Amino acid sequence: MMMNTPLTMTQMIKRAEMFFPKKEVVSRTETGIHTFTYKEIADRTRRLASSLEQLGVNRGDKVGTLAWNHHRHLEAYFAIPCSGAVLHTINIRLSPQHIVYIINHAEDRVLLIDPDLVPLIEKCQDQLKSVEAYVIMSDSMELPETTLSPVYNYEQLLENADANYQYPDDLDENSPAGMCYTSATTGNPKGVIYSHRGIVLHSMAIGMADSVGVSEQDIAMPIVPMFHVNAWGLPFAAVWFGTKLVMPGPYFTPKLIAELIQDEKITITAGVPTIWLGLLKELEENSYDMSSLRGLLCGGSAAPKGIIRAFEEKHKIPFIHAYGMTETSPLAVVANLKSYQKDLPYEEKLDYRAKQGVLVPGLEIKIVSEKGEVSWDGKEMGELCIRGPWIASEYYKDERTADAFQDGWLHTGDVVTIDEEGFVKIVDRTKDLIKSGGEWISSVDIENALMAHEAVFEAAVIGIPDERWQERPLAYIVLHEAYKDNTTKEELLNFLTPQFAKWWIPDDVQFITEIPKSSVGKFLKRELREQYNKQLTEK
Amino acid sequence: MMMNTPLTMTQMIKRAEMFFPKKEVVSRTETGIHTFTYKEIADRTRRLASSLEQLGVNRGDKVGTLAWNHHRHLEAYFAIPCSGAVLHTINIRLSPQHIVYIINHAEDRVLLIDPDLVPLIEKCQDQLKSVEAYVIMSDSMELPETTLSPVYNYEQLLENADANYQYPDDLDENSPAGMCYTSATTGNPKGVIYSHRGIVLHSMAIGMADSVGVSEQDIAMPIVPMFHVNAWGLPFAAVWFGTKLVMPGPYFTPKLIAELIQDEKITITAGVPTIWLGLLKELEENSYDMSSLRGLLCGGSAAPKGIIRAFEEKHKIPFIHAYGMTETSPLAVVANLKSYQKDLPYEEKLDYRAKQGVLVPGLEIKIVSEKGEVSWDGKEMGELCIRGPWIASEYYKDERTADAFQDGWLHTGDVVTIDEEGFVKIVDRTKDLIKSGGEWISSVDIENALMAHEAVFEAAVIGIPDERWQERPLAYIVLHEAYKDNTTKEELLNFLTPQFAKWWIPDDVQFITEIPKSSVGKFLKRELREQYNKQLTEK
Repeated sequence: MMMNTPLTMTQMIKRAEMFFPKKEVVSRTETGIHTFTYKEIADRTRRLASSLEQLGVNRGDKVGTLAWNHHRHLEAYFAIPCSGAVLHTINIRLSPQHIVYIINHAEDRVLLIDPDLVPLIEKCQDQLKSVEAYVIMSDSMELPETTLSPVYNYEQLLENADANYQYPDDLDENSPAGMCYTSATTGNPKGVIYSHRGIVLHSMAIGMADSVGVSEQDIAMPIVPMFHVNAWGLPFAAVWFGTKLVMPGPYFTPKLIAELIQDEKITITAGVPTIWLGLLKELEENSYDMSSLRGLLCGGSAAPKGIIRAFEEKHKIPFIHAYGMTETSPLAVVANLKSYQKDLPYEEKLDYRAKQGVLVPGLEIKIVSEKGEVSWDGKEMGELCIRGPWIASEYYKDERTADAFQDGWLHTGDVVTIDEEGFVKIVDRTKDLIKSGGEWISSVDIENALMAHEAVFEAAVIGIPDERWQERPLAYIVLHEAYKDNTTKEELLNFLTPQFAKWWIPDDVQFITEIPKSSVGKFLKRELREQYNKQLTEK
Repeated sequence: MMMNTPLTMTQMIKRAEMFFPKKEVVSRTETGIHTFTYKEIADRTRRLASSLEQLGVNRGDKVGTLAWNHHRHLEAYFAIPCSGAVLHTINIRLSPQHIVYIINHAEDRVLLIDPDLVPLIEKCQDQLKSVEAYVIMSDSMELPETTLSPVYNYEQLLENADANYQYPDDLDENSPAGMCYTSATTGNPKGVIYSHRGIVLHSMAIGMADSVGVSEQDIAMPIVPMFHVNAWGLPFAAVWFGTKLVMPGPYFTPKLIAELIQDEKITITAGVPTIWLGLLKELEENSYDMSSLRGLLCGGSAAPKGIIRAFEEKHKIPFIHAYGMTETSPLAVVANLKSYQKDLPYEEKLDYRAKQGVLVPGLEIKIVSEKGEVSWDGKEMGELCIRGPWIASEYYKDERTADAFQDGWLHTGDVVTIDEEGFVKIVDRTKDLIKSGGEWISSVDIENALMAHEAVFEAAVIGIPDERWQERPLAYIVLHEAYKDNTTKEELLNFLTPQFAKWWIPDDVQFITEIPKSSVGKFLKRELREQYNKQLTEK
């Protein structure tokens, strides 16, 4: 039989240290750009693991991080799970009361905090029930002035740590390695626990040529924050494969992103559509050499065709459209063209590539409507259900588990179609679908169509109550600066008319200055609906 | 936590059927070249599983195959394990008594046999203790005349099978899926059992960009027989990824291989050095379009630099040098250059690429001599030890397990060096190393140097007893036809002199017409040593 060696994360950092000691991690922190070799990172990671042990962290204990994308956060990504503890990456963009909730709910014993985020925690430290130590991840050997207590300096801890610390070799592959909370439509965030096995398999998956093909040859820059689903697993995979990593640090701008891509010769980078919209603007205003890029990995929410086309046709930057969620580690579906689709005309290819794509090897999906599994015709809508070894089986100590996890499948809450080629397309969130005259209207489809109009910067479509039709679509539009005074509702609605059935066309368009967004950059349609209702009552 | 969905092989064939139903398997059989879609292959595979069930095959039962590389063998590759039975691929090149031994030792209940291999089994059927049914994998619906009994026709079985058969969904990932026997230096072959988990993880590994990167974009042709370590796992991975497969069938020639590569636009193909030597000759004699190839995967034994250089410089065909063995599923080490090595001069790159390479993600290695772990200097020799989830933990019901498996590591019996960059280089088999004057001499190094001489077709170097030095090297040489009458021992020894320390130079050279080889094409040095001893006693 085969050996029962477990799929644990220690092998990842060990491989980087043994086989790629000279490869580098370039890290932007509050004081500038710093470069470390994997040999140094591996040494510092061991020291951090030893320090945490000295602070009393035991197997299974949670250690929270409030941090940007930089080398210290990367060290925490390995030191915590490889020593048997659990890496809890805290979304710093949650409301203070949600941050308090998740720290208490996870029972974090230690918090690793970026210097600029210290005030965030100082404000709520009285409410934290389980935290026994605060560690400040500063470039300095000095502690900043702070009310946090007991408080430690990261670099000081490392200096005093045991350089010969050894990771335990008896970790179970099914033991928890990480956790991340995902915001809920209402109520507190819901926690997902990642196992060592799940992280190892997910890392293999994103290294596969048929998914993202992350490799030692890459220079990878995760722009997606490390507090969002482990920066989509890129840091784990990159370290394992000896990939050079570039960490963009705090408060970056589109300009900084463009410069890093150019200067560091980034081959692959990852972020949400909002990031790419910003970069696109920057590329239109200034000129950069982007020729090193082999892919912009885009997920989090659907990228409109217009963005993909602009990057590819105008800037010759290949776009990789993918789909996943906190509950799926996240990679589930990638819009890679099949070999025989490569010769299609560009627009037809774009039709496929603007969908979320084809199932990654290792998972299973089914798409279910009230009538059972939908047909693969690109039309029938159903809820996407996913199963596999890097899919969560529950929310951590949360009664809402029963809503999303049924019969061994994750019910994603995303309404999708699947076409003859097996390309999944997100139509809407189950709760954002608009039900008009007994039929469903996809708000996302209309939004994407609107965002393809040159005047439109952002568009969000919601369903508003209607006596006759039950619900009718209403569009909220943010215009590009240059179009603010010369764009009419009629123009936009006329633009939509040839593209949709008549009853899909929104009844009205409202121009606003900004669409409310969640901490992860997704449109908060719930807030738009609340605004609308408030307007109604105020009238 | 994450779902505990098992890593079983059913997902692989299901993904091909669902997402790549139109993709093809091109299969060369005794009657010509046939094409099947994955939809058809998946249907036929289900039918085969149902037929085996009807023949009384239960979970855990062994089903043997004696077959070349073709679509029916591919169907067996999935039908047998996905139904819970165990695929035992029998090496048809073993001696008849070894074939009898392994069928009896595995307790095969059914044998699937190619028509041309029926006589092989007819001769020994009286000695087979466990076989209850013979199935002949012919293109015809008629059975050939045979003394085998009870005997069935494959296509007939499929026609009468249940098309709605469902694979069991409760297979354990650690249950046996396949098995393969590896020949031993002395005694009977030793069996290795592959688990579902091992096969799934190995398939992911060969799909990774940093190993072989097998993908849907490929057109893959496994030349390495499906009775050698599962054709190195290519058929499993290819089906999973929806890769077009070309199966070269029985009795192919270098000419046929070249034609298939050209006509089918093969992107990746896999075989032992002997195959590539043959292809090289063919390419020198006739002209083919090989431009579709992105890689010739070479393993089984070390490829001399000369072959790699000839393919790459003369024919612009990239060569992928890898290492593994039956016990390692097989992929363990691949000679991919690191990103920063790509700008080295070609000869320096070749120095790395002619080594066996760098550890595949997912495994661990250590290299051990009597003094402990060797230094990474490319000089100190030690035995390669490997550990990981697709490495065998034992030989099936075999006392020789204790020799090779110790302290949780596979001791490969291969003596290697590892350089500063982590490139492993096979120096010799532990038992083929030559110990002269208390120091070790690598027979393989001298062989490779000799094979770089234009006159030399093949070279094998053995250690012969020496009173003073304990052992001394002796070279056996097969010359190219054109050089047979005009090449001297002195010329070859002078050729070696500048390349090695004086005491490494063989004491003598013997010209022979052929080097004895094992069933998998490896030099049988044991036979050379026996020949030498016989000569001695006859003198």
